[in-house]
Amino acid sequence: MTTPMADLFLRPGADRRVRGGHVWVYSNEIDTQRSPLSAFVAGDAVAVRKADGGLLGSAYMEPQALICARLYAPGHEQPLDTLWLQALLVRALAGREALFKEPYYRLVYGDSDGIPGLVVDRFGQYLVLQFHNAGIERYEAEIVQALVVLLQPLGILLRADNRSRREQGLEDRVEVVFGEVPDEVTLQENGVPFLAPVVEGQKTGWFYDHRMARARLADYAPGKRVLDVYSYLGGWGIQAAMSGASSVCCIDSSARALDGVLANARLNDVEDKVSVLQGAATEMLQTLHKQGRRFDLVILDPPAFIQRRKDIKKGIKAYQRINELGLNLLEPDGVLISGSCSMHLARSDLMLALQGAARRSGCEVRVLEQGGQGPDHPVHPLIPETDYLKSVFVRKLSPAGI
Amino acid sequence: MTTPMADLFLRPGADRRVRGGHVWVYSNEIDTQRSPLSAFVAGDAVAVRKADGGLLGSAYMEPQALICARLYAPGHEQPLDTLWLQALLVRALAGREALFKEPYYRLVYGDSDGIPGLVVDRFGQYLVLQFHNAGIERYEAEIVQALVVLLQPLGILLRADNRSRREQGLEDRVEVVFGEVPDEVTLQENGVPFLAPVVEGQKTGWFYDHRMARARLADYAPGKRVLDVYSYLGGWGIQAAMSGASSVCCIDSSARALDGVLANARLNDVEDKVSVLQGAATEMLQTLHKQGRRFDLVILDPPAFIQRRKDIKKGIKAYQRINELGLNLLEPDGVLISGSCSMHLARSDLMLALQGAARRSGCEVRVLEQGGQGPDHPVHPLIPETDYLKSVFVRKLSPAGI
Repeated sequence: MTTPMADLFLRPGADRRVRGGHVWVYSNEIDTQRSPLSAFVAGDAVAVRKADGGLLGSAYMEPQALICARLYAPGHEQPLDTLWLQALLVRALAGREALFKEPYYRLVYGDSDGIPGLVVDRFGQYLVLQFHNAGIERYEAEIVQALVVLLQPLGILLRADNRSRREQGLEDRVEVVFGEVPDEVTLQENGVPFLAPVVEGQKTGWFYDHRMARARLADYAPGKRVLDVYSYLGGWGIQAAMSGASSVCCIDSSARALDGVLANARLNDVEDKVSVLQGAATEMLQTLHKQGRRFDLVILDPPAFIQRRKDIKKGIKAYQRINELGLNLLEPDGVLISGSCSMHLARSDLMLALQGAARRSGCEVRVLEQGGQGPDHPVHPLIPETDYLKSVFVRKLSPAGI
Repeated sequence: MTTPMADLFLRPGADRRVRGGHVWVYSNEIDTQRSPLSAFVAGDAVAVRKADGGLLGSAYMEPQALICARLYAPGHEQPLDTLWLQALLVRALAGREALFKEPYYRLVYGDSDGIPGLVVDRFGQYLVLQFHNAGIERYEAEIVQALVVLLQPLGILLRADNRSRREQGLEDRVEVVFGEVPDEVTLQENGVPFLAPVVEGQKTGWFYDHRMARARLADYAPGKRVLDVYSYLGGWGIQAAMSGASSVCCIDSSARALDGVLANARLNDVEDKVSVLQGAATEMLQTLHKQGRRFDLVILDPPAFIQRRKDIKKGIKAYQRINELGLNLLEPDGVLISGSCSMHLARSDLMLALQGAARRSGCEVRVLEQGGQGPDHPVHPLIPETDYLKSVFVRKLSPAGI
């Protein structure tokens, strides 16, 4: 990327957000007379300028997208080269190493770490990358080089097979881009070892984001009968078992995920406590209810029910429904841990969904605590979209004085 | 309270909130033809009824207040007697004992525990009560009796000297209402022992609400130079020292609070690490800055800057100002823990205040995690006012690549 950087001029007054510290530029903010979008292809590095020519920073272009430029170097005229990536990666790594003793975490979280469109999850000596658009994909060689110099990994896997890419018409790419990567890697979360299928699994193979909420199982799980719904590899369930749960039942629609649960149970020597049920969550919860099964702790960690802003209303209903089914299976005084990774679901709306679920389930609930994403998913205070994860711990009240 | 219960009729359509599970009745919702407010005095127990006479539940009256009736028994016609209180207390106690190994917690948190206007903090064998209005004060004898039967405490202290009482024209009452209570009690928080002056201290003598955020100091404090602003008795600072901070400086405007810090430092054998500075927070932070002092971890846990809804704008500025001063004292890569106990300050507004503070301080910040009140301060999902506490952990970024 040694081409000299072109200028991207904003319209008068359209520079306010970026001057305030945001890193997105929308296509309707461009002075297309001076800098026509058609002159750019995805990934072109530009100097973003105010109408008066003053520099705002450097960005790469996504000329077809609503967010047509993403800043990676606010305040600087700077190509997105290996050296610059190196500086950003050093900072990101220092932030993780300050808080995590073991090398298992999200190392790069897109905009929050100054590298829009890039996610890097670290599994010890292995790294898994996600590219979320074509712009960042142009910098694959520089990114790989910077990561190799910084961390000397044994292997780097590219998982460019996410929904946002598909929506942009980009093809899936899943390939080893450096060294060798096994189908399955090991990781630790809150001191508990896990196996994760990085090549075939969901997203990068593991969800580090709920780490802190899962650590809270140490207080909630001992002696309890636990139901882990949408379990994937048992991130919640196995940690509950390791925290002293008396039994753990994991539900997932994927047989492969449940094989992973059982493998992780064996790895931690808790296979006697852990059982699995394959099927759709809503159906399985209804079946368990009909069978009279009850639990002391129910964990619901569904996939994002709301993918687009227009689906919010329908999504809230879906959250209410699944939480109602979860509450139905809880003993009085039991605890429900209700997660949502829908960026578009406000915390207050999840609270309303829970209240609606309680009313329909015929019980009262109180919120004991609320969790969010861990510090390896730092939130950019000006970009609410970076703050997507919620977990709400509620107690189902026993009726008083009846 | 054996008087037969009078009826309180709501106007047609005014029952929606209570039917949905809320426990407040506003004075403009009353059918004052059928049940004139002037017929009641504070504390009168009433059967709250829909316009058609259907029972909504039992409440005590606060006829002079905007919230003129507060339900303590939704769905039941039930006096607020010792037995009913006992049932509510048993449920509240079970909720705490399920999560806390040691008897140091908020045992009763008003509306969320079904006893509006009452707060009970437990310090082992001693209890401290707060009455927030005249209505609940009528039930003092029943409350004390129920607590004595349930917990056999050595003593119960009444701290009816809060702002909400004064606003209602009620006189302060601070008195031992059962047994004997020493001026100072011991407690443990996250395994760290503390002394708290229950008679002369702030509120009930201790703030249990930040317990979970303080537990996170174990990850953030080791090896760090810590500044604890608005320290009160050192709840944050001493726990930081116990988590391995290299030094802790506590700032408070109260000499008595700082005596408490030093006593708690001695109690934990960390007096060599802990120093205190008396003065107004803003002035002290500016002085430290002029002196060139810098810290790795700054904790700001101010009193509520926003007491009334109309003060929100001014309050946000006050939060921004103090956070700016805190950021100025941080080394790059340092962490700021920013608290707010203002019910009227939305989490998103605290985030904006932090972003504004960062801009004025000339740095960028990222939010590492967000905390709230612990599970002994359960949130009623329909009463946002019960969800008041916030703590935001932000990292001050080092400039990248310069």
